[in-house]
Amino acid sequence: MSNTEATEKVHEAQSAALELANVSEEQRNDALRSIADAIEENSEAILEANEKDVRAGEEMLEAGEYTQALVDRLKLSESKLGDIADMVRSVAEQEDPLGKTLSARELDEDLELYRVAVPIGVIGTVFESRPDALVQIAALSLKSGNAVILKGGSEASHSNRVLYETIVEATEDAPTGWAQQIEAHEEVDTMLAMDDEIDLLMPRGSSEFVSYIQDNTQIPVLGHTEGICHVFVDSEADLGMAEEIAFDAKVQYPAVCNAVETLLVHEAVAAEFLPDMVARYEDANVELRGDERTRDVVDVDAATDDDWDTEYGDLELSIKVVDSLADAIEHITAHGSKHTESIVTENADRAGRFMRSLDAASVFHNASTRFADGFRYGLGAEVGISTGKIHARGPVGLEGLTTYKYHLEGDGHLVATYAGEDATPFTHEEFDGEWSPGRRSR
Amino acid sequence: MSNTEATEKVHEAQSAALELANVSEEQRNDALRSIADAIEENSEAILEANEKDVRAGEEMLEAGEYTQALVDRLKLSESKLGDIADMVRSVAEQEDPLGKTLSARELDEDLELYRVAVPIGVIGTVFESRPDALVQIAALSLKSGNAVILKGGSEASHSNRVLYETIVEATEDAPTGWAQQIEAHEEVDTMLAMDDEIDLLMPRGSSEFVSYIQDNTQIPVLGHTEGICHVFVDSEADLGMAEEIAFDAKVQYPAVCNAVETLLVHEAVAAEFLPDMVARYEDANVELRGDERTRDVVDVDAATDDDWDTEYGDLELSIKVVDSLADAIEHITAHGSKHTESIVTENADRAGRFMRSLDAASVFHNASTRFADGFRYGLGAEVGISTGKIHARGPVGLEGLTTYKYHLEGDGHLVATYAGEDATPFTHEEFDGEWSPGRRSR
Repeated sequence: MSNTEATEKVHEAQSAALELANVSEEQRNDALRSIADAIEENSEAILEANEKDVRAGEEMLEAGEYTQALVDRLKLSESKLGDIADMVRSVAEQEDPLGKTLSARELDEDLELYRVAVPIGVIGTVFESRPDALVQIAALSLKSGNAVILKGGSEASHSNRVLYETIVEATEDAPTGWAQQIEAHEEVDTMLAMDDEIDLLMPRGSSEFVSYIQDNTQIPVLGHTEGICHVFVDSEADLGMAEEIAFDAKVQYPAVCNAVETLLVHEAVAAEFLPDMVARYEDANVELRGDERTRDVVDVDAATDDDWDTEYGDLELSIKVVDSLADAIEHITAHGSKHTESIVTENADRAGRFMRSLDAASVFHNASTRFADGFRYGLGAEVGISTGKIHARGPVGLEGLTTYKYHLEGDGHLVATYAGEDATPFTHEEFDGEWSPGRRSR
Repeated sequence: MSNTEATEKVHEAQSAALELANVSEEQRNDALRSIADAIEENSEAILEANEKDVRAGEEMLEAGEYTQALVDRLKLSESKLGDIADMVRSVAEQEDPLGKTLSARELDEDLELYRVAVPIGVIGTVFESRPDALVQIAALSLKSGNAVILKGGSEASHSNRVLYETIVEATEDAPTGWAQQIEAHEEVDTMLAMDDEIDLLMPRGSSEFVSYIQDNTQIPVLGHTEGICHVFVDSEADLGMAEEIAFDAKVQYPAVCNAVETLLVHEAVAAEFLPDMVARYEDANVELRGDERTRDVVDVDAATDDDWDTEYGDLELSIKVVDSLADAIEHITAHGSKHTESIVTENADRAGRFMRSLDAASVFHNASTRFADGFRYGLGAEVGISTGKIHARGPVGLEGLTTYKYHLEGDGHLVATYAGEDATPFTHEEFDGEWSPGRRSR
């Protein structure tokens, strides 16, 4: 595929996006259900293509290029395809993020301003390995009325191609070109340069990968690079509770971004808290590294400066004893990644200070950092997690794939009426009402 | 000032931002009122500095480098300073954009998730000529709890320096370093590179200037480059109303971004509508250019292809006759700048189609494009206008300078409880409640 082809695909997506903004909720949901059905009906061809990817992956594994985990993630099965189809059906069942009137304000008699939720337009996505990612991203985009450019990893190219074709065939009633697939690496660079055509990028993958995207485009990026999360055990913590939370936050699933990487312990409770905690972690095979004051109390390896800035993503944890709540805040401000931070304390004022002072997407009081997740937050399907502060922050649901438009309904209103010496004043009164063309609600 | 100094200033702002997030509404408003008082008390020194800028500006005017309009915008007076002080007081009186609980959801018994409005952090601003811009931007930033980097135009450097010092002295009780001034052009480039420290950029100025900023930074930019707005006179328009709206949209204030640049007229009404409309424009000295079909009806100069993509910002207008509503939508999609588009029609369905199909921040029915403005929309002080679709769109009020944080209040809750075979289900129930540390609302 030449770059010209990639450019054309983006332009096609752009045209489709304008049409898609006018497609009814019912039609979008019908299209989603027909994707789900097609995936099940087409399972033989999908599994055959997947088999090719898995075989190639196993060769790479033998050559030491891929890990077993990567090959496992690649592999589809009849039952996995059923799960994927069900996931698409559940997206269809979610509340429509579009068309809602977010606010309504009378500016003057018969002059009414509505803020209406609309799709963003064209979403560019780049993701790695798992072929179910392609289906999930396509489904979320369609539900939210956005056209989408899909770029999967080369390791899943056969599976992705058949899944993409299945999706396109199943959505022939949707605006042509709403989903586009690009496959070559150079096409990603073409996409990154098309900031007039693509409205938002959602990269998924390693933090190096997300950083590369962020550094090479003018398009807004929704994503997160790192999850360096902390649990702070305060001087006024319930130590039993603290042990449970710190354990859950690390051990329940260490590979994810909302797992804790550094445990901060107030010096007033370090001697009492650390021995049991460390024993508990060691039973679960957590590799521990501590600062000097931690090592005064328990026998663990010495932490280096790098440890405070490392996302282990594994059964590893660094521990630091701090002098005060202020010290904990300072450490997190210096080393955290604005993702999720938790304090364990029985003192509400101290919890408040911690939560207000930290600049992180999620700040928790007496709860495990692992709760930072779109499903647990009740946002429905998770589009991604954002560590940026603009547009959407923390776990992002379908709402993150929408923006708004102002709709003004008038009756020949002129600005001249509201300017100059005898200016008519505005009424500026909020009211409950849904926009509908030509009909004023009040 | 060296680049190291600029870097230090940004770092100072970053520390101040963390403190500022904890400053109460009362303290922020007190600081604003003391800025207003200080500007009035310090008027002599401010006017003296301003005199230097004006004199230098007049020299540049004689040398043909500046326009009279620029020199006029530079000039302050005792009464203008009074207006500026009143503007700052009115910002103090606006509703606090911070601390509000935007939504509250019970995840499970005693596990409550709150979405709380917080400042964005550090805002970088670059603006031109008018010295009141510095005060307005500083006031809006302080009100919304954000630290701010201020870079004004060199033409107002003396005024800006004294105004900045006045603001800093008046806000000694606020976190030190919350407002920073940079003056050299190279420092702007330093700032543009500090995407880890600066959370949002708000450039004001020409579209070339805003484009330059957008093209040279990884920091999200809130701004607009162009305002190419259209009025479409539909076949079912009330032609009297259409004439008033099209006149107001161009003539009431042609220099602004929400003024109309191209008038589209449905061919069914062109012969009846255009003669009176053109006579009215010509009486107001509007220079007109039309396409061939317009020139079949009225005697105006020929429009070139460039006219459809030009923001005149003056008493100039291009006119095009279109075959249909679809044609109008197509023309606007090709040439508009996603700012503000208006249809005049008595047919609600056609209005709906126009408003739904166009991808613009504001879409109007039977109203002048000039209404697209934060004050008229009732947003309070206007932070800027955005033609981007991410974060904030159209006229942006103080809310555009905020983001949110998730606050989770638990009682020792672990994710392990909600995972695996015997997973406890989440309740996920929205409720009305305000976050307050340690106190669960339900």
